[in-house]
Amino acid sequence: MEGITIIPAKADEFALIWPIFQAVTKTGDTFIYPDDMDYFDAEEIWMKGTNPYLVCQGEQVVGTYVIRPNKVGHGSHVCNAGFMLHPDHQNNGIGRYMGEHALKQAKELGYLAMQFNVVVSTNSRSVALWKSLDFKIVGTIPKGFLHQEKGLVDLYIMHRFL
Amino acid sequence: MEGITIIPAKADEFALIWPIFQAVTKTGDTFIYPDDMDYFDAEEIWMKGTNPYLVCQGEQVVGTYVIRPNKVGHGSHVCNAGFMLHPDHQNNGIGRYMGEHALKQAKELGYLAMQFNVVVSTNSRSVALWKSLDFKIVGTIPKGFLHQEKGLVDLYIMHRFL
Repeated sequence: MEGITIIPAKADEFALIWPIFQAVTKTGDTFIYPDDMDYFDAEEIWMKGTNPYLVCQGEQVVGTYVIRPNKVGHGSHVCNAGFMLHPDHQNNGIGRYMGEHALKQAKELGYLAMQFNVVVSTNSRSVALWKSLDFKIVGTIPKGFLHQEKGLVDLYIMHRFL
Repeated sequence: MEGITIIPAKADEFALIWPIFQAVTKTGDTFIYPDDMDYFDAEEIWMKGTNPYLVCQGEQVVGTYVIRPNKVGHGSHVCNAGFMLHPDHQNNGIGRYMGEHALKQAKELGYLAMQFNVVVSTNSRSVALWKSLDFKIVGTIPKGFLHQEKGLVDLYIMHRFL
């Protein structure tokens, strides 16, 4: 995508990601993580045992995604991925580009499928994006997510083979 | 249940659980954990951040289960539980008793629902047990589990409110 570069994040580069992590989780309507998670917990969740990436527009880091095994052992052929894009840079195609990039990377890493465990059902933009990238809703957890404004709402599990 | 006692496990009692953990995971047809997981990794998975229990027949520990938040933050009102019963003590009602006990404990701990993320579709005994305890299959991960004998088989996600 013109003007956007996606590169692997180094283990000590979480500081570049932290402002995005904070901006995205504080809305309490998209991510499962507690709104008040501290730097070190966030770093462990996002960087430990994952393949993390930086999404850059010029010199500026505007987004991040990670790929990791969805489960250890007998489920490790399926990956999970998480995506964060700074609110100032949404709605301009970067989200889709990150998704396409992640699918390619995951395949290269040898995974057979990608699974999202936490797609908030009220987040219609995300649901539509993943459906357009051939993900299917394979499960619905009733009232699985405590939405900051809407209370308990359903969670979708979305999946596609690579 | 006559002759069976279920008590909380203390933080330093994983040694009592380890023989069961080994016996149950080595079959490679029920649990997601790698068949060759070592003591310390197993201890961390089973004891850290969980409510672990010992299932005793007389003085002997024959089973164990844990309750833990299925997700942090916005999903922490839903618990996950894991159950292990030594192969020598299966098929005699202890599994059901463990399940009933866990549902009661989870409710007392304040959870709103219980979710299993890894019910191997070919494990018909477990699927039937959980259905009889009012769990529903809310999701199916196609080929989500690498079964030691059968290869890639589906995984069910099962759920019930408490």
